Amino acid sequence: MFLIDGQISEYLQVQDRGLHYGDGVFETIAVLQNSLLCWEAHYQRLKSGCERLGIECPPASILISDFSQLKQDSELAVLKIIITRGQGGRGYRSPDPETHVTRILGIYPWPDYPEKNYAEGVNTRICRMRLGHNPYLAGIKHLNRLEQVLARSEWDQVDIAEGLMLDINDNVIEGTMSNLFIVTNNSLITSDIVNCGINGIIRQFILGLAPDVGLPVKITTIKMQDLYNADEIFLSNSVIGVWAVKMVESHQFEPGPWTEKIRNKLIEQKIIVR
Amino acid sequence: MFLIDGQISEYLQVQDRGLHYGDGVFETIAVLQNSLLCWEAHYQRLKSGCERLGIECPPASILISDFSQLKQDSELAVLKIIITRGQGGRGYRSPDPETHVTRILGIYPWPDYPEKNYAEGVNTRICRMRLGHNPYLAGIKHLNRLEQVLARSEWDQVDIAEGLMLDINDNVIEGTMSNLFIVTNNSLITSDIVNCGINGIIRQFILGLAPDVGLPVKITTIKMQDLYNADEIFLSNSVIGVWAVKMVESHQFEPGPWTEKIRNKLIEQKIIVR
Repeated sequence: MFLIDGQISEYLQVQDRGLHYGDGVFETIAVLQNSLLCWEAHYQRLKSGCERLGIECPPASILISDFSQLKQDSELAVLKIIITRGQGGRGYRSPDPETHVTRILGIYPWPDYPEKNYAEGVNTRICRMRLGHNPYLAGIKHLNRLEQVLARSEWDQVDIAEGLMLDINDNVIEGTMSNLFIVTNNSLITSDIVNCGINGIIRQFILGLAPDVGLPVKITTIKMQDLYNADEIFLSNSVIGVWAVKMVESHQFEPGPWTEKIRNKLIEQKIIVR
Repeated sequence: MFLIDGQISEYLQVQDRGLHYGDGVFETIAVLQNSLLCWEAHYQRLKSGCERLGIECPPASILISDFSQLKQDSELAVLKIIITRGQGGRGYRSPDPETHVTRILGIYPWPDYPEKNYAEGVNTRICRMRLGHNPYLAGIKHLNRLEQVLARSEWDQVDIAEGLMLDINDNVIEGTMSNLFIVTNNSLITSDIVNCGINGIIRQFILGLAPDVGLPVKITTIKMQDLYNADEIFLSNSVIGVWAVKMVESHQFEPGPWTEKIRNKLIEQKIIVR
């Protein structure tokens, strides 16, 4: 079910710049018993992404009012919000400042990830597709996502839950749909997202609370060797929550105590569902 | 006027991957007296872009039949063709192979660029926004165009016709909507598009015919100094044709004889309109 500019609809005006240029941003939010998890953080990121692209972000109150039209009966669901620069404009040039941005809200069924992803961890692979560098766009959850689409198209095996992506300088950055963390010598390490990568909401919360559970944090570059030497590896996003990684290509890892502690803390604070 | 999957329509299904991920390619084609200029070359590029993204390109006959539904009375018009991977798919993962790609054709009025752009040349600026590197996507005319949108948003002055874009290694690559050529010591030079940039149709033709008018061709890297030391600079695309550059920031250039020869040859061969 979709709501476009406040109206229930399945159809978007074909001149929308979201289609023509990927000229917009999006959020994917877990919905638990009709309430949005981490709404404040999602809205802040939406707003900051809009600001960086020069798009006027709709007020939170309007998005919340839109969402109330979409509420439904499932215990769990996923809300996707897309904000685009609106219709038209000649070529790349932005349309008149009075042009209304387009807001699209869609409610999706909660994905049925296998129970063992949580109990045992997941298998991953290294994608051939690399993340390009562009500091101007890095971190933003924008609609230009061909790198992720092509990376995700590299495998079909159902027992591989995620692909890990390197950047063009051989740094390990993140998964196609998740942020990546490694634990080495009782420190938590994640990639910086200065040149590429997404500023994940759960990543933000993990970086904030890891020190509270006794795990100091380092944001730096991760090489393949760091990955293979890690004591624990895990992935995060708003819908999967936290998955321990038990395999990267043919290298095995043990789901470890730090991953468990982080996940429990996130669940306890109602940041993730499970 | 738009035609979506063979039907006159202004509305696209909101789950289309063109919107969600920029998961598709496009062409912009000059239409002169109801006939498509350089159709073969445009279709080949569309097909090759689709192949690189793993999208099944509709047969040329279908697109031509679509176009015949859109024909109109103006002497000149612009046809935009967008091909997306179609609807849905869970997250980045591609939908079932049976999913139909979406084809969108839109007819636009011919832009009224000032006469003096052709008679005297144009002013340009250097954009702050850089082109990121991704060899997997370089050259493809895909729908992930935020770099161009943001570059184009950097200026408002009507007397600046185009912005030139560097890549993240300080190479001068192209304009926001055009390819860039310089003439130095009676050689024609254009950037390679191995890491970024668009494989422009007019660029292809220029590279092919320049030797015929006595101008040897070099595809290499162009630094700012090469640009400022050039004897002639010009821009090309399917709609503007060829514009001499008379100014880059505060550096002045003379529209020169080689630019004129190339343009005349392109017009003579019905590759561009003017």
